[in-house]
Amino acid sequence: MILAIDVGNTRIKAAVFEGATVLENFVFLKTELEKNIQNILNKYEKVSHLMVSSVSDVEKQSFSAFENLVNIHFVSHSDSFPFVNCYSTPQTLGIDRMVNAAGATLQFPNQNRLVIDAGTCVTYDFIDESNNYLGGAISPGLGLRYAALHNFTAKLPLLELESPEHFVGKSTSESIHSGVVNGLVHEIDGFIAEYEALYPKFIIILTGGDTVFLAKRLKNTIFANSNFLLESLNQLFQYKIKND
Amino acid sequence: MILAIDVGNTRIKAAVFEGATVLENFVFLKTELEKNIQNILNKYEKVSHLMVSSVSDVEKQSFSAFENLVNIHFVSHSDSFPFVNCYSTPQTLGIDRMVNAAGATLQFPNQNRLVIDAGTCVTYDFIDESNNYLGGAISPGLGLRYAALHNFTAKLPLLELESPEHFVGKSTSESIHSGVVNGLVHEIDGFIAEYEALYPKFIIILTGGDTVFLAKRLKNTIFANSNFLLESLNQLFQYKIKND
Repeated sequence: MILAIDVGNTRIKAAVFEGATVLENFVFLKTELEKNIQNILNKYEKVSHLMVSSVSDVEKQSFSAFENLVNIHFVSHSDSFPFVNCYSTPQTLGIDRMVNAAGATLQFPNQNRLVIDAGTCVTYDFIDESNNYLGGAISPGLGLRYAALHNFTAKLPLLELESPEHFVGKSTSESIHSGVVNGLVHEIDGFIAEYEALYPKFIIILTGGDTVFLAKRLKNTIFANSNFLLESLNQLFQYKIKND
Repeated sequence: MILAIDVGNTRIKAAVFEGATVLENFVFLKTELEKNIQNILNKYEKVSHLMVSSVSDVEKQSFSAFENLVNIHFVSHSDSFPFVNCYSTPQTLGIDRMVNAAGATLQFPNQNRLVIDAGTCVTYDFIDESNNYLGGAISPGLGLRYAALHNFTAKLPLLELESPEHFVGKSTSESIHSGVVNGLVHEIDGFIAEYEALYPKFIIILTGGDTVFLAKRLKNTIFANSNFLLESLNQLFQYKIKND
């Protein structure tokens, strides 16, 4: 039994896996890491391994309390991955992007794949059918766009994510919701169209905290799974066991 | 002779007009407002009026040193504008958006107009051929997107605006440039396409600090003029004289 842990820029998401099956999902704040991990390990005594992906300042020492209880693996750039990394700066490629790319490669073999992870940031990652990881793009996620409009201007309010009532916003709030939500939807549709010009056929995987909100608004048929990164951590664990 | 002053979220832009002709443009920081205005007034002694649009915390009192030298008019919601304001919260409609809408109405009569102002924020504003201001959208500008990626994440660098070398970014820097620049270009192209579905014919005016960078990257034919807001202030001054 393994506990997959995704330490993002905003929150920590975790899931307990038995083989390929998710037994339970958890979401908590970084400040409550130790308490939450302890509770999970108390509840699921059979957990023998922790697989951790971190893009945050949460490092290995944050897990030191559990070192004698379970095997802890922090996914790092020196691990083996099931794809060829064609990035020119592989040491700065986000671990979350590498885990997503690994999951896409293992779960959807022999095809071109575009992974879109819409969380704090939106990351785009492309792995071709020969398992070459080609790179992608990074842009601000929905929450970041709302925060930026408020934090970097004198007069705009901080709003929470909401579906825009009208495309042409008829108030400051409606204008912000339209700009943020329709802006990102057009961005994603546009990126997909650009990839279509390069690769006529590929599968699109959408994941991250805004998966459900965005999935129904996009033009293309996508494989939407907000748990994809955690599932990919689990698959990377199985891959590691086979290849170590 | 009038001095038009656009106080934005980041910088102050100003221009001296004689009739419809721009004599000189200026850009300076808010902290150097008084010194710069004084220099301009010393150089252009015939300036009799200041027309100020402010979306920032710079208010009337910042100009008190010049009260006895020139007439100072801060554009406000209680001014008359050459359009019917259909916004449901007219008191929170940004003064910059109102000035742009006024300029579009006066400069391009009897047609539908979309004004896109790409500065700190990107604002979209639509005024139909019957001079109804319908509203629009607000999203983060290019600089804000770069800043947000750095400020709200643990590991992403703060980059300066640069043309993305590849659509598929092959390094963290390339990924950020692609996400920020292509992201906004797709957003703008997408917004224009949505307006096209509602209004088959309209003129598109692009203005703001990122006008030159963005204009050549957009699909549609646009009227690109980074000075549009200042010119609109000048036109609004002429309109005010006629209508007061």
